[in-house]
Amino acid sequence: NPVLNPTTSNPPTPPTDHRALAQTHDLFITSPYSPGSPLLLPNGAYIFQKLQSFLRAQYPQFGFQEVITPTIYKKSLWETSGHWDNYAEDMFSVQGRGATGQTQNAEAGQDEEFGLKPMNCPGHCLLFRENIRSYRDLPIRYADFSALHRNEISGALTGLTRVRRFHQDDAHIFCRPDQIVTEIDQTLRFVGMVYDTFGLGPYKLLLSTRPQDHFIGTVEEWDRAEQQLKTALDNSGRHWDLNEGDGAFYGPKIDIILKDSNGKEHQTATIQLDFQLPQRFDLQYQASPEELAAPMSQQECGQLDSANRRPVIVHRAIYGSLERFMALLIEHYAGTYPFWLSPRPAIILSLNQDAELLRHVSHIQSVLSGLQHPHAPSTNESSARPTPRPLSAVHLPIDVDTSARSLGKKIADAQKKRYNHIIVVGPSEVSGQSLKMEAVNQPNMSATEGVLQEVLGRAVQETEKR
Amino acid sequence: NPVLNPTTSNPPTPPTDHRALAQTHDLFITSPYSPGSPLLLPNGAYIFQKLQSFLRAQYPQFGFQEVITPTIYKKSLWETSGHWDNYAEDMFSVQGRGATGQTQNAEAGQDEEFGLKPMNCPGHCLLFRENIRSYRDLPIRYADFSALHRNEISGALTGLTRVRRFHQDDAHIFCRPDQIVTEIDQTLRFVGMVYDTFGLGPYKLLLSTRPQDHFIGTVEEWDRAEQQLKTALDNSGRHWDLNEGDGAFYGPKIDIILKDSNGKEHQTATIQLDFQLPQRFDLQYQASPEELAAPMSQQECGQLDSANRRPVIVHRAIYGSLERFMALLIEHYAGTYPFWLSPRPAIILSLNQDAELLRHVSHIQSVLSGLQHPHAPSTNESSARPTPRPLSAVHLPIDVDTSARSLGKKIADAQKKRYNHIIVVGPSEVSGQSLKMEAVNQPNMSATEGVLQEVLGRAVQETEKR
Ligand SMILES: [Zn+2]
Ligand SMILES: [Zn+2]
Repeated sequence: NPVLNPTTSNPPTPPTDHRALAQTHDLFITSPYSPGSPLLLPNGAYIFQKLQSFLRAQYPQFGFQEVITPTIYKKSLWETSGHWDNYAEDMFSVQGRGATGQTQNAEAGQDEEFGLKPMNCPGHCLLFRENIRSYRDLPIRYADFSALHRNEISGALTGLTRVRRFHQDDAHIFCRPDQIVTEIDQTLRFVGMVYDTFGLGPYKLLLSTRPQDHFIGTVEEWDRAEQQLKTALDNSGRHWDLNEGDGAFYGPKIDIILKDSNGKEHQTATIQLDFQLPQRFDLQYQASPEELAAPMSQQECGQLDSANRRPVIVHRAIYGSLERFMALLIEHYAGTYPFWLSPRPAIILSLNQDAELLRHVSHIQSVLSGLQHPHAPSTNESSARPTPRPLSAVHLPIDVDTSARSLGKKIADAQKKRYNHIIVVGPSEVSGQSLKMEAVNQPNMSATEGVLQEVLGRAVQETEKR
Repeated sequence: NPVLNPTTSNPPTPPTDHRALAQTHDLFITSPYSPGSPLLLPNGAYIFQKLQSFLRAQYPQFGFQEVITPTIYKKSLWETSGHWDNYAEDMFSVQGRGATGQTQNAEAGQDEEFGLKPMNCPGHCLLFRENIRSYRDLPIRYADFSALHRNEISGALTGLTRVRRFHQDDAHIFCRPDQIVTEIDQTLRFVGMVYDTFGLGPYKLLLSTRPQDHFIGTVEEWDRAEQQLKTALDNSGRHWDLNEGDGAFYGPKIDIILKDSNGKEHQTATIQLDFQLPQRFDLQYQASPEELAAPMSQQECGQLDSANRRPVIVHRAIYGSLERFMALLIEHYAGTYPFWLSPRPAIILSLNQDAELLRHVSHIQSVLSGLQHPHAPSTNESSARPTPRPLSAVHLPIDVDTSARSLGKKIADAQKKRYNHIIVVGPSEVSGQSLKMEAVNQPNMSATEGVLQEVLGRAVQETEKR
């Protein structure tokens, strides 16, 4: 299994722009047909999915449940959420085309246009209010990796960092007011664990509090919530700063500001409290005995059944935009990815095109990539009846170069493409059932050697370490 | 690890509608804000993702590489592909909104509207033609799970079967004409493997051939391609029928028609050859020596560099629409899902609310769900520093009911919710470190018992089998 933690400890400074680095590894392309929506090539999609799978693997221990929600919603949903009025410039509108060739109102009686979603929150509110919720059911934590669209002006569009289409590791926590501290606590732990895994940091935490004039809710609610955020920040053991009065009108927030190897700061993760959306969507839960004993705020009195209370929503993202986080990692690793994330973990070069040698190359490839057990007899793939592989199977994209070119050319090419490992197989390797390997900046050499020795049934001859 | 193969061998007849069955397991909801775009609740998203992960785990052995492509493309792409003219009624158009509140042409100099993608093929063509391709590079196989949108009329919308937004296990194979037979061969094997895994079938294969009048390419090309499809169909060892003259004008195809337990037929998988899209996108590859020796068709002569040839595109989907496939499985399993796919594999019921008993329940839950090793000491979760779980970790959503209700009520509720296993823990189970379990239609009992015995360090007392 790939090891999660090895990262380069000394990334070079200053980093090259992610667009240039991405070309080396064939990660993505852009197209005039889809400005702001990059197309991820297989290698880019591979990294994207590793990032997604990594977070998915962590969700159960933090109590997140994934949901899958629509891309387009009727305008009236965005009016309810406030996006249609407050977010107009950033939203795309969607209309049916219809047989008439008209671009508007093609469908009688259904003439309301759609908005292409810029955020997942309104959809998650629909899910929350589908059932009657009790104080015992909370917190409910919905996670969503949906594609989001925001209409950035075309002049600003850049690679993976300024885009119109992106994916967030988005989640919304619906909780009781008294659960805020625990939820923020856990979220900060989650952030720390993720950033440690990628060797990112240091980062600073920034708390933005109630604006002076324009805010919703009562001063007491804000004070209580901010006190809980401060407690969680103190619990985190990390340094944090106060950004007094800089919160949104609908709730205080914590920003995570990451310093890259070049000293540049990036705002990545956010934890945003929201008192407003629960009101707009009239979200309620059956209150606990303690809550019923406490006085109801005047604001709530007019709006709520007396046995109910409003949940608080916590919007939170750890990567933030996956595309932007990828750009950051591309620069952070500067072309040398940790093994588990690398789209080019290894390539096998053949010294010649002898049939037996090519068989040996193909055997090593299929074992290293995880498709075949080391000591299973080679079968004729195309004639065998395929058997399903388990969902837990890990696959590594091991490449081969069996072209007729000289070994020198192949090595130069493999180095240019920055494979983590270059494995050379010649006649003596075939007869000795061995291989020669060059490890290029491989942070977890001993684990890799272990795998290779298992494959070969003997020690690996390492040609060079750099 | 979840076992892939156990499925109910005798699904009840006739099946209940998937919408009713889905309610039992809380799989999805629909909303007037998103007609035709169902919202998948955690349990529905769980099944959806198992389906997706299962196919992803198989892709490497069949040579598919996943890519991630845009949701919206400029109108001119859809004009190139032919969708804008031939598919008008089914497409949504997308426009920026902008500060003026206009819904059209908000951005100066960029006034071309977008189309919301109904298919992935045009995007994959952009990826193919990004690089110079040689005959040695083929086949190239791109897979894509993107959300797709088609503007079905609102009256037709139904649950997961007639929708506006759906996901396909879509893939496009770009191959040389002489590679068709091998690719179809492998695709038919893949289909067989997948349908066997779900216990679906029997299914029939239907070949649709060249229409009499209106078709592109030469009769020779069609004959050669159809001959290859027939060879692959014969190789499959399954019965197939001929639908003479019923192919699309741009290529022959194979449909897979599945018969459900009620005798109803469903068209699920498709394998469609396409001679047209490679022309429209002017896709080329550097020809092999054999291809250069053979005469070029007259049609190609005018269009292609003489050293190049056109690839063929194979559009293929095995599930087809994941949403529709889910609906089919919901009816097929009729509420009793195989363990690995079940959103409710087990629930643990506590006999009372004693603190020690609740700790035992929580221990069993965390071990069964895969979050904790059976013999690891229980830690105080919230104070411990979290450690990342590997990507290969399998998590099972094990529920608990520790409410103050009577055991009878809890069992009735759990049965109504159709958990695969109901586990009861009372004081004697705590002192004996054991549990009582009712297995409800569990197809793989011995494997489950193995896990439970490992957890407890002793044999499991099974109360009832039904
Ligand atoms: Zn949000
Ligand atoms: Zn297609």
